[in-house]
Amino acid sequence: MTEATKATATDKAVSDWWTTSIIRMEPGVIKFRGHPIQDLIGTVSFPQMIWLMLRGDVPSEGQAKLLEAALVASVDHGPQAPSIATARMAITCGVGLNNAMGSAVNVLGDVHGGAGEQLVELFERIDAAGGVSAVPEMLVAFRAEKGKFVPGYGHRFHKDGDPRTPRLLGLVDDLVAQGEISGRFVAIARAIEAELAGRTHGVPMNIDGATAVIFAELGFASPLARGIFCLSRSVGILAHAWEQKQQGGRNKGPMPPSYLWTYRDD
Amino acid sequence: MTEATKATATDKAVSDWWTTSIIRMEPGVIKFRGHPIQDLIGTVSFPQMIWLMLRGDVPSEGQAKLLEAALVASVDHGPQAPSIATARMAITCGVGLNNAMGSAVNVLGDVHGGAGEQLVELFERIDAAGGVSAVPEMLVAFRAEKGKFVPGYGHRFHKDGDPRTPRLLGLVDDLVAQGEISGRFVAIARAIEAELAGRTHGVPMNIDGATAVIFAELGFASPLARGIFCLSRSVGILAHAWEQKQQGGRNKGPMPPSYLWTYRDD
Amino acid sequence: MTEATKATATDKAVSDWWTTSIIRMEPGVIKFRGHPIQDLIGTVSFPQMIWLMLRGDVPSEGQAKLLEAALVASVDHGPQAPSIATARMAITCGVGLNNAMGSAVNVLGDVHGGAGEQLVELFERIDAAGGVSAVPEMLVAFRAEKGKFVPGYGHRFHKDGDPRTPRLLGLVDDLVAQGEISGRFVAIARAIEAELAGRTHGVPMNIDGATAVIFAELGFASPLARGIFCLSRSVGILAHAWEQKQQGGRNKGPMPPSYLWTYRDD
Amino acid sequence: MTEATKATATDKAVSDWWTTSIIRMEPGVIKFRGHPIQDLIGTVSFPQMIWLMLRGDVPSEGQAKLLEAALVASVDHGPQAPSIATARMAITCGVGLNNAMGSAVNVLGDVHGGAGEQLVELFERIDAAGGVSAVPEMLVAFRAEKGKFVPGYGHRFHKDGDPRTPRLLGLVDDLVAQGEISGRFVAIARAIEAELAGRTHGVPMNIDGATAVIFAELGFASPLARGIFCLSRSVGILAHAWEQKQQGGRNKGPMPPSYLWTYRDD
Repeated sequence: MTEATKATATDKAVSDWWTTSIIRMEPGVIKFRGHPIQDLIGTVSFPQMIWLMLRGDVPSEGQAKLLEAALVASVDHGPQAPSIATARMAITCGVGLNNAMGSAVNVLGDVHGGAGEQLVELFERIDAAGGVSAVPEMLVAFRAEKGKFVPGYGHRFHKDGDPRTPRLLGLVDDLVAQGEISGRFVAIARAIEAELAGRTHGVPMNIDGATAVIFAELGFASPLARGIFCLSRSVGILAHAWEQKQQGGRNKGPMPPSYLWTYRDD
Repeated sequence: MTEATKATATDKAVSDWWTTSIIRMEPGVIKFRGHPIQDLIGTVSFPQMIWLMLRGDVPSEGQAKLLEAALVASVDHGPQAPSIATARMAITCGVGLNNAMGSAVNVLGDVHGGAGEQLVELFERIDAAGGVSAVPEMLVAFRAEKGKFVPGYGHRFHKDGDPRTPRLLGLVDDLVAQGEISGRFVAIARAIEAELAGRTHGVPMNIDGATAVIFAELGFASPLARGIFCLSRSVGILAHAWEQKQQGGRNKGPMPPSYLWTYRDD
Repeated sequence: MTEATKATATDKAVSDWWTTSIIRMEPGVIKFRGHPIQDLIGTVSFPQMIWLMLRGDVPSEGQAKLLEAALVASVDHGPQAPSIATARMAITCGVGLNNAMGSAVNVLGDVHGGAGEQLVELFERIDAAGGVSAVPEMLVAFRAEKGKFVPGYGHRFHKDGDPRTPRLLGLVDDLVAQGEISGRFVAIARAIEAELAGRTHGVPMNIDGATAVIFAELGFASPLARGIFCLSRSVGILAHAWEQKQQGGRNKGPMPPSYLWTYRDD
Repeated sequence: MTEATKATATDKAVSDWWTTSIIRMEPGVIKFRGHPIQDLIGTVSFPQMIWLMLRGDVPSEGQAKLLEAALVASVDHGPQAPSIATARMAITCGVGLNNAMGSAVNVLGDVHGGAGEQLVELFERIDAAGGVSAVPEMLVAFRAEKGKFVPGYGHRFHKDGDPRTPRLLGLVDDLVAQGEISGRFVAIARAIEAELAGRTHGVPMNIDGATAVIFAELGFASPLARGIFCLSRSVGILAHAWEQKQQGGRNKGPMPPSYLWTYRDD
């Protein structure tokens, strides 16, 4: 960039093409949502910063702690999760940690990372329809439209209960007791669980359900349930990519090399 | 998965193909690095969890606060950063937040995300060569090998100093004073800055330099300087993707549609 | 992989977990869809191989030529396309060509890469409803559901007609004349164009429309319209990444460095 | 985009920021490397178009056929290849075909996709050092620097020879006989193979070796060996993603769900 080039920065439409309320910059100045960065560093927690970046205000300490609990709870579910396996395989292909993270975060799609988003939407619809009393009817409608599987309930591995759920809901209850959140969404979530439990096999609330409660109680838009999950799972993705890097391996496939896939003549 | 399928899980080599020390799971049990998840949720901070996942131990509160400062400081540098522009364009192409994050984190490569990693390596080499006194000689050697540009120093935009650096180094100094970190690496970093300042234009330590100091002082392996930067920048990436989603736009290119690129006949 | 490890490959369920009809392998043997690879190399064209891999049979030369035309036509639309800008920026961030391609192909989502897929679906619905005669009614229904914009028609830049369309449709007409394809879908496509042309501004069929005709006439499932577009655009993505690599540049943002984005206080 | 916005396209520096020799566009006009797109569609083959985009000239039919053979030969190596497994897992996570391709192409890094690039570089160095006669000495030097593994030779699965190699080399020999390529690089490649065969276990040239010969003979820059491999493998990636989509599955992990990874207490 020469001075001559600089002098040509004359077209405001170009600057306006990239308009943001998140960050303001001048030489020597960086402000996020109006706060100078030096006032944030060492002062706000990382979860508070995440909230500030996504929403524009700094949350209370209680709100931030609840968000933090959700961030801590979802970091990892082991190498059988496709995102984690992707990261571990990627690193053995000779790419960087950023690339392993890129390929892996990318797969947190509607099925792998979308349950929370879908459940927050359902919570919102039930809330708008009257809350807990609307649960049975709304659930019938939901399943008629989307199928019997309700996102956020049941777990193929932790069949008798997800160990993360009671702890997360306990923290939600504490914050309700402190008057910081309304408790409307955790009540809806429990009413759904009770409704589902009427069936032969109970389908207890899982991690996606419990964190969806947190996101709804804190007022996050539903797509951010997925977005924040991506931030959280990125930690596990990075940790596994790094562990795999240290373990070594080249072109690691999904199965030991002694196995070949099954060919089926169609 | 039928019960019949389950009964076939007989080959230990398959399980061993995916071996990890990060997470242990049984039905109803999830442990990270030996800690039951329910003991971590609501107890450790998100930065402590990141540390635990990457390294296996829980850091002290002081160490975690310093890591947290680095995480807060690097979240974003605005839409002129290619990672942020990538995320904003991606979302207008009709992909999910996870995909916008995937494409964007992916580009945090050697140039965009690698300065910290390279600098931690340089710090380690200087430290092994005797520390501050070895700076002049090691710097000559480094530049002879890699070119005159020293990663972590100078900024094309914040020419008179990066506003994040003094605040971060102040936190480092505090922790040195408390005896939690050695201060060897911040001393090296400042000696490099002094050495570079002898030239016509000073090249003050930038954000990559200051966070590299933090990673080195806390004992992170150099590739994790990039990995943790990816975690931090993912926040800005998500925030910008989300803001763009709310702004709307379809197939947003880098320039306003009134512009066309320059064709040059070769 | 030791012999000991090999001996443990005893669980058929593991092999069956990865079942495919695409490729069969034994030491010294690779067959695709039943054809030994050495019989394909130098014998089938690349478009024939793409067809074979996706569908299981080898297309006629005429069919392959039409697919080839679609592959050639969509390779690139210049640096204002977000996929191309992403690739070019990525390469300046210090990642490999594979990573630049990964980030860029990834953004070929519902808006950037999905028009063909949506249009093939619309063609199929119209065909099932009776073909050309059903166009007016189906178009009203489509727009009532999805909005006035019909994918594959109109172009914000080539307002008076996309130069690729007449050539592609000419090749379609040729193959219809040769009796290799039915011509039902090109007739539907033209009927849609005529219907839309009744409005003040005509909205001529664009590249997505013309290639959707090709995919429909050749019997590709609608999602493969997007998939094959990804294969084609990957060529432009690679070419631009490679050109950018040769041009140099570090951390290239969307605008010249003399520009800063507009900050708007919300 | 309003007319008012359009009127502001006044800053040439903005257009110049995105300069390319690949594509020229005006309303109604698209030219690639100087050729109107309508002259290319239906006239050049897809491999010729790939060459034109990457290099600026249209190759002869013989050259294009040889490139085509390389493109056909490398499309797939089955679900045990991490790229293919990544694509198949991705699609079960609820992302689009473009995203599955993005995550998968992304992992074609130094180890998974880089052998050809490294070998073309070695060929070029040997050629510059005198060709075949320099092979023994250069090979010793290469292995001293990079380790005993020579990229492009040996295969852990096809131990007695890769079935693709003889067919590809036969096509190379044909084109040498026709005087279209020099044959210098295939001679070097065979000399390397002979040199390596002196050891206890022969390490025959594999697919990466044979395609590296093709890229070198055709004069492609070494990084394009990887780039073109990415184009080729994208076909297999797409085919497997699509097959998996049709097979169904949700959150497919690397092993059957009856398996859990091995936890190792460190």
